[in-house]
Amino acid sequence: MQQYFIPTEQFTETHVTVMGEDAKHMQKVMRMKIGDLCQCADRDGHVFNCMVESFEGQNVILKLVEEKSNNAELPIRITLAQGIPKGDKFDTIVQKGTECGAYAFVPFSAERSIAKWTSKWDKKKTRFEKIAKEAAEQSHRDIVPYISEPMDLKELIAYGQKFSNKLIAYEETAKLGEQQGLPTLLKSISPSVEDKLLIVIGPEGGLSTAEVQQFKQAGFICCGLGKRILRTETAPIYFLSCVSYHFELLYEVNK
Amino acid sequence: MQQYFIPTEQFTETHVTVMGEDAKHMQKVMRMKIGDLCQCADRDGHVFNCMVESFEGQNVILKLVEEKSNNAELPIRITLAQGIPKGDKFDTIVQKGTECGAYAFVPFSAERSIAKWTSKWDKKKTRFEKIAKEAAEQSHRDIVPYISEPMDLKELIAYGQKFSNKLIAYEETAKLGEQQGLPTLLKSISPSVEDKLLIVIGPEGGLSTAEVQQFKQAGFICCGLGKRILRTETAPIYFLSCVSYHFELLYEVNK
Repeated sequence: MQQYFIPTEQFTETHVTVMGEDAKHMQKVMRMKIGDLCQCADRDGHVFNCMVESFEGQNVILKLVEEKSNNAELPIRITLAQGIPKGDKFDTIVQKGTECGAYAFVPFSAERSIAKWTSKWDKKKTRFEKIAKEAAEQSHRDIVPYISEPMDLKELIAYGQKFSNKLIAYEETAKLGEQQGLPTLLKSISPSVEDKLLIVIGPEGGLSTAEVQQFKQAGFICCGLGKRILRTETAPIYFLSCVSYHFELLYEVNK
Repeated sequence: MQQYFIPTEQFTETHVTVMGEDAKHMQKVMRMKIGDLCQCADRDGHVFNCMVESFEGQNVILKLVEEKSNNAELPIRITLAQGIPKGDKFDTIVQKGTECGAYAFVPFSAERSIAKWTSKWDKKKTRFEKIAKEAAEQSHRDIVPYISEPMDLKELIAYGQKFSNKLIAYEETAKLGEQQGLPTLLKSISPSVEDKLLIVIGPEGGLSTAEVQQFKQAGFICCGLGKRILRTETAPIYFLSCVSYHFELLYEVNK
């Protein structure tokens, strides 16, 4: 069933009014008629089964049938600080990262980032937010991940202070055969607590040793992501899949 | 360090002769000179540190310095049977699946596959093999994954008989909250044994209930891939990441 994220202020106790692009999608793409069903989520994590009640001008009025109880969110909030990559790779990272459960994305201007993103950020942000919304709808998330302003190293380290768990994915760690950082950390987290985790992933050239040193001094832990060298846009999917496997699949078997 | 896969017959006891595209890449892209280092893998899983010794016409002659002992392969061989997807998504699946450790890819003509691939298969296969080789070089794999001819349901089920472990990723299973199939299976496998696993992933529209029924009758087990609905090209990366996490990261901590 198609899912839409609708601004919370368009919900009443019993109905939701769908406007703009979403209303157009319902009518032109999905060709929805009175009585048809879909899912609507507000921006606060509530998801409802809804039924088309009427059309008012270009808007669609839906009746809230029932609130859905299933939670499609990871039990730990993952913020992905991604070294700004080349070309349109950040689009892929936002799309796939949203599918795999990321809570927020922070573009990070790393030493080896070739793209700079100093201009046209507003336009980029709008595009990333659209990609995140569509991927969240497609994968039936409860929330749309947040896209942060780009940060530099100093800002990212300061931002990291509010996280209980801070990691950096470091290729050199993987080369040395150090693979215990991630599972050791995940095993130390109780998934009943709403915990926050920040992971830093480097751009194409990886993080520099100077950057790694500064992250370490600020309490970030190094972790490897398996035995193979992953591209910058594959690493976040690998990481999020591990977190999902650990808490959503394996934990259910172990408990 | 750059890695190349070179046909086994171009290796002697002490040297390897690099020809064609690879020799061109070494000279034109990497601008390698006598004394420069790189890695060369034969097609049988051996990886060597090599040094440029001389140039003979357009060929590059490398001296084998030492065989590398690190194994970058998953401890279980994963064959990915992928419902033929639309557009160039199979390119993405081969590239990212290779990075994440897949052993072989089988394009599967599923009931809901829209693309048919009845013509120009040879050209497609050449492209997929090139993508697999480049991704295996980039991620420092020991082998280049194998690309099979496309199969239909009956052929795939017959092909599956030689696998000790057979799974289907089934979205409806995920919707019902059944997440124990995958971790239960992985826990039953001893990673010291060279085991073979086949996983079937549907195309964009998923597997049909009739297909699922036939796979089940042939001994395939259903498994969910987390709480969110993944795109057809994301599911294989999720799956391979879980296998890597289970055997390469978590296993090291548990033993």
